[in-house]
Amino acid sequence: MLVVMKAQATPEDIQVVCEHIERLGYRAHPLPGAQRTAIGITGNQGEVDRGNLEELPGVAEVIRVSKPYKLASRDVKQEDTVVRFPGTDAAIGGRELAVIAGPCSIESREQAFAIAEQVAGSGAQFFRGGAYKPRTSPYAFQGLGLDALKIMAEIRERFGLRIVTEALDYETLELVAEWADVVQIGARNMQNFSLLKQAGRLRKPVLIKRGLSATLEEFLMAAEYVMSEGNYQVILCERGVRTFSDHSRNTLDLSVMLPMARAAVAGGADGIIVEVHHQPEIALSDGPQSIYPAQFEKMMNEIEMIAPVVSRTLPRGIRVGASAE
Amino acid sequence: MLVVMKAQATPEDIQVVCEHIERLGYRAHPLPGAQRTAIGITGNQGEVDRGNLEELPGVAEVIRVSKPYKLASRDVKQEDTVVRFPGTDAAIGGRELAVIAGPCSIESREQAFAIAEQVAGSGAQFFRGGAYKPRTSPYAFQGLGLDALKIMAEIRERFGLRIVTEALDYETLELVAEWADVVQIGARNMQNFSLLKQAGRLRKPVLIKRGLSATLEEFLMAAEYVMSEGNYQVILCERGVRTFSDHSRNTLDLSVMLPMARAAVAGGADGIIVEVHHQPEIALSDGPQSIYPAQFEKMMNEIEMIAPVVSRTLPRGIRVGASAE
Amino acid sequence: MLVVMKAQATPEDIQVVCEHIERLGYRAHPLPGAQRTAIGITGNQGEVDRGNLEELPGVAEVIRVSKPYKLASRDVKQEDTVVRFPGTDAAIGGRELAVIAGPCSIESREQAFAIAEQVAGSGAQFFRGGAYKPRTSPYAFQGLGLDALKIMAEIRERFGLRIVTEALDYETLELVAEWADVVQIGARNMQNFSLLKQAGRLRKPVLIKRGLSATLEEFLMAAEYVMSEGNYQVILCERGVRTFSDHSRNTLDLSVMLPMARAAVAGGADGIIVEVHHQPEIALSDGPQSIYPAQFEKMMNEIEMIAPVVSRTLPRGIRVGASAE
Amino acid sequence: MLVVMKAQATPEDIQVVCEHIERLGYRAHPLPGAQRTAIGITGNQGEVDRGNLEELPGVAEVIRVSKPYKLASRDVKQEDTVVRFPGTDAAIGGRELAVIAGPCSIESREQAFAIAEQVAGSGAQFFRGGAYKPRTSPYAFQGLGLDALKIMAEIRERFGLRIVTEALDYETLELVAEWADVVQIGARNMQNFSLLKQAGRLRKPVLIKRGLSATLEEFLMAAEYVMSEGNYQVILCERGVRTFSDHSRNTLDLSVMLPMARAAVAGGADGIIVEVHHQPEIALSDGPQSIYPAQFEKMMNEIEMIAPVVSRTLPRGIRVGASAE
Repeated sequence: MLVVMKAQATPEDIQVVCEHIERLGYRAHPLPGAQRTAIGITGNQGEVDRGNLEELPGVAEVIRVSKPYKLASRDVKQEDTVVRFPGTDAAIGGRELAVIAGPCSIESREQAFAIAEQVAGSGAQFFRGGAYKPRTSPYAFQGLGLDALKIMAEIRERFGLRIVTEALDYETLELVAEWADVVQIGARNMQNFSLLKQAGRLRKPVLIKRGLSATLEEFLMAAEYVMSEGNYQVILCERGVRTFSDHSRNTLDLSVMLPMARAAVAGGADGIIVEVHHQPEIALSDGPQSIYPAQFEKMMNEIEMIAPVVSRTLPRGIRVGASAE
Repeated sequence: MLVVMKAQATPEDIQVVCEHIERLGYRAHPLPGAQRTAIGITGNQGEVDRGNLEELPGVAEVIRVSKPYKLASRDVKQEDTVVRFPGTDAAIGGRELAVIAGPCSIESREQAFAIAEQVAGSGAQFFRGGAYKPRTSPYAFQGLGLDALKIMAEIRERFGLRIVTEALDYETLELVAEWADVVQIGARNMQNFSLLKQAGRLRKPVLIKRGLSATLEEFLMAAEYVMSEGNYQVILCERGVRTFSDHSRNTLDLSVMLPMARAAVAGGADGIIVEVHHQPEIALSDGPQSIYPAQFEKMMNEIEMIAPVVSRTLPRGIRVGASAE
Repeated sequence: MLVVMKAQATPEDIQVVCEHIERLGYRAHPLPGAQRTAIGITGNQGEVDRGNLEELPGVAEVIRVSKPYKLASRDVKQEDTVVRFPGTDAAIGGRELAVIAGPCSIESREQAFAIAEQVAGSGAQFFRGGAYKPRTSPYAFQGLGLDALKIMAEIRERFGLRIVTEALDYETLELVAEWADVVQIGARNMQNFSLLKQAGRLRKPVLIKRGLSATLEEFLMAAEYVMSEGNYQVILCERGVRTFSDHSRNTLDLSVMLPMARAAVAGGADGIIVEVHHQPEIALSDGPQSIYPAQFEKMMNEIEMIAPVVSRTLPRGIRVGASAE
Repeated sequence: MLVVMKAQATPEDIQVVCEHIERLGYRAHPLPGAQRTAIGITGNQGEVDRGNLEELPGVAEVIRVSKPYKLASRDVKQEDTVVRFPGTDAAIGGRELAVIAGPCSIESREQAFAIAEQVAGSGAQFFRGGAYKPRTSPYAFQGLGLDALKIMAEIRERFGLRIVTEALDYETLELVAEWADVVQIGARNMQNFSLLKQAGRLRKPVLIKRGLSATLEEFLMAAEYVMSEGNYQVILCERGVRTFSDHSRNTLDLSVMLPMARAAVAGGADGIIVEVHHQPEIALSDGPQSIYPAQFEKMMNEIEMIAPVVSRTLPRGIRVGASAE
């Protein structure tokens, strides 16, 4: 259910409607838009009893949201979501393509700085690196943990890059939210509903990777879990799905990352997340699917040329890392 | 790596070998077999330095386990795993087929008792019912929680059924381990490695459902996560995978549960887990895939006839629930 | 559209209705049932103009068949289809399980006779063997062709087995229809609509294997193509589908054929088709998925025990091959 | 097996080697390259006995091709294949992107001309339209057949467009080869090996669509079937595969054709095949996945901008249709 307020509704009107909704036993989600505010209603098992909601001051109409996802629906918010990072120009979902790059895992301060300098030099605005790794084998490298988070905080200071890293569970979610700028929920946890709910109580953007076999609706419902707790800064990251087709790891062909990055931009993606490593042959995890910094620079040149076709830009003037040389 | 002890090795020999392994910085897993004990070695990143292990008293040979799963491998333990329940005759993996039946969710004391009585009467040895439900929508019924656990504990007392129920996260894992007999890890959490590790520290059997798109190897690696923490009582539950084929929910055809139950027994499964509800049309969750008690009774009669073909039994003499009437 | 005739309708009534339908520009398919005859109407692009059909003598009612498959629908024919073989007791779809066994390819007269004798001895009623092989590689063994068909005709004479073999195209379809008892359409040709239509003009039963990625509806539509040309003797053969799961060739697990044969019977299949070879290690095609005659005998013993659970029999008294010893 | 000739080898040297190969009972495929000629050897069941091939005049070396596809392998021909159309500038696989556009089915002369004029005006060099339609239902519109072929031949005359259309079986293959410029083999026939072989005997380019569940290797083996008969002009057309993901028809997302066309060009495709219809709402087949001419014009503008990033052009100066106005 969605309460659409009139354009001239006052903050007090909105406040009154929200309190009314809460009194009915539901949860109210005020969602300010460019023209006017909508208020999402969740927390109901079945049909919401709309009571006299439509008669409250400032209310334009009360509409039913027919999709299983409510807050993630365009019914509720027609504008594109733009996730912003206070104190910076960086954004995800705006006119500027967001480029998130870095190694699979943070392996050492030296490795992380070497890669960060290079991706910043090529124009990435975000740095990614695993601190806590969800590995298929319990015997594989599990990440440097808190040390990795501290190294990435230094990288933010030094290169002006925003930090994206994955959280696996309650403890790591709190640590990642404290040290990073975007909390990543991995594909294997896309339906770890307890973790999604906890992420919904954060005040940090959450990037959710699509599960290996998730339908589009399930992917949106994962976003809904986060949003239903009040955190509307959700970034959805498509990464291919698992099929019978075995010549690449996923059917989006992560194995041929450069063509796919170009294709993703041409297809209208808001941004790109890519693993970059200066020495992938000795990487502790996922070396084979990383690209070299020189390949990353080439990719950036290419997507910069494609971006205008989809009314995007890739402003690369700042180049913190390069100018820091 | 696996240390195979001689048949005549003493407990002291085994103790010495385990201590030796731990001193090398690895973890030792003594695995007693019918003939002799094997000791699994985990905790190594690469190749284990076998040092002078082969020269220790009682050691027959040291062999490399080439599969990514070690403790879950037949190399390490050739015998079938039988999970037993102290103080009862119930077992999973033994000659007797294990039948686990009950509703999707515990909805009330009355509903749970009605169903428990009927499935016990038909010869099920285990009762299943959701206390904590992983729902695709944050707005769907999430389970009765601790109240449901307490109801199921009463059912164990009353009907002699062992209790199987799902845990979703740290808190619910501890509660389920306290109140139930088997801790279920659902398909969506099959690669929630933090949860699997925590389950590995329990002293209760863990039933893992196959993930929607999990390969066989990934399924075994989930077991390995639990086992690598010292809990070897792992039950793997196949439940079909997600494919393009959309006429049923999963490709094992859960929608035609009676034929599939017969097929599973004929194919050699150790047991069956099935949702039974006396009023599925008003069930709070998953009603459409539940069967009625009368269908359950028919299913039991059928699999009882098939069981001997695969050298199994389905002894139904006790019928606690029925005889309790 | 379906015209249901009254139980007491005469052959003349049926004839009149059929002629009426043909005059309207459609095709009439009289389908005699146990109680009464139904007449399917096909050949229409959109809605059939039912004209005054309901007023013709002997017509009980005219009903719309809402499914995309008409003649393959239970709406049109409620009874199970039983495909019979004149002059023999063999049938597919009746109370007796049909067992179709033999090598992937006919490699020589000696090989074919050796295997035929053994499967007949174990109670199979049908012999299968490839004469024309659809191979993924143009450089692989393509079958012995007409020679293989002649060898199988001898086998029918000698052991009383009905012959099932695959046709690939127009020429081989005519040859197979001439020499064999059942014309097989392989999985790769399941949507070769030209071939299906031609098979629909035969007066021989057609066995269609499910395509690697065919939905249930597409599978039924393949049957509909054959039936729409007037051949209602269609046998559908499930053989698993292609998924991400790579530990076996198809997701029905053909690699573990014995458990799956038991499971198929327990699940309610009308019969089993299985590759048997006395020397699979030197077979010219598909050796690894063949079973040995001794395994086949064991399989027969096992499914004979399961058959009564699903109200089937597997009468093995005749054992032509064995008695011929 | 592949015989690589020296750069200075004469036509007579090549002739001698080919005859030698044929005398050994194999088939020789001379494949001229930019620098020198290679001669593919096929027709062997196992290892080729290379005899004294290496000693013949002009032979540089004899190498084993380890892949199951030989002639389709880069081992045999390193250069990109460019399919040319004599008497025109049109090509597929060259520097210029090939754009193939037109309706799903030819429905009438008026419909076909209206669409052809518009796609030619937007710069397409190829016109596609179904004459023979492989429909899932035997009761659906099956195409206009020969009349459609004749209409398309007129379109070639009038607008200078090359014609691409599908053949279903022997008869239609001969007709399509006679009337069209490119013979299309549809996804459902990708493993109709009889049809592929017959297409290999044509002297017209063959466009093969990827099967719904075909692996990359199977797709290449389909090309190999055509090539093994001597026709090396094979065009492979990716069209997405069938997966669990049901929000679009195939997993390449044909439902969002404009973004995918841009993505395909950005990803490095040689060309685009797209269904265009001026009145999709009344189309006899596949209306919902067609785009309007105005959308097509927009698509062309967009991919024209992307083409240079992948070193391609989309020269649209000629615009036959538009200038014909």
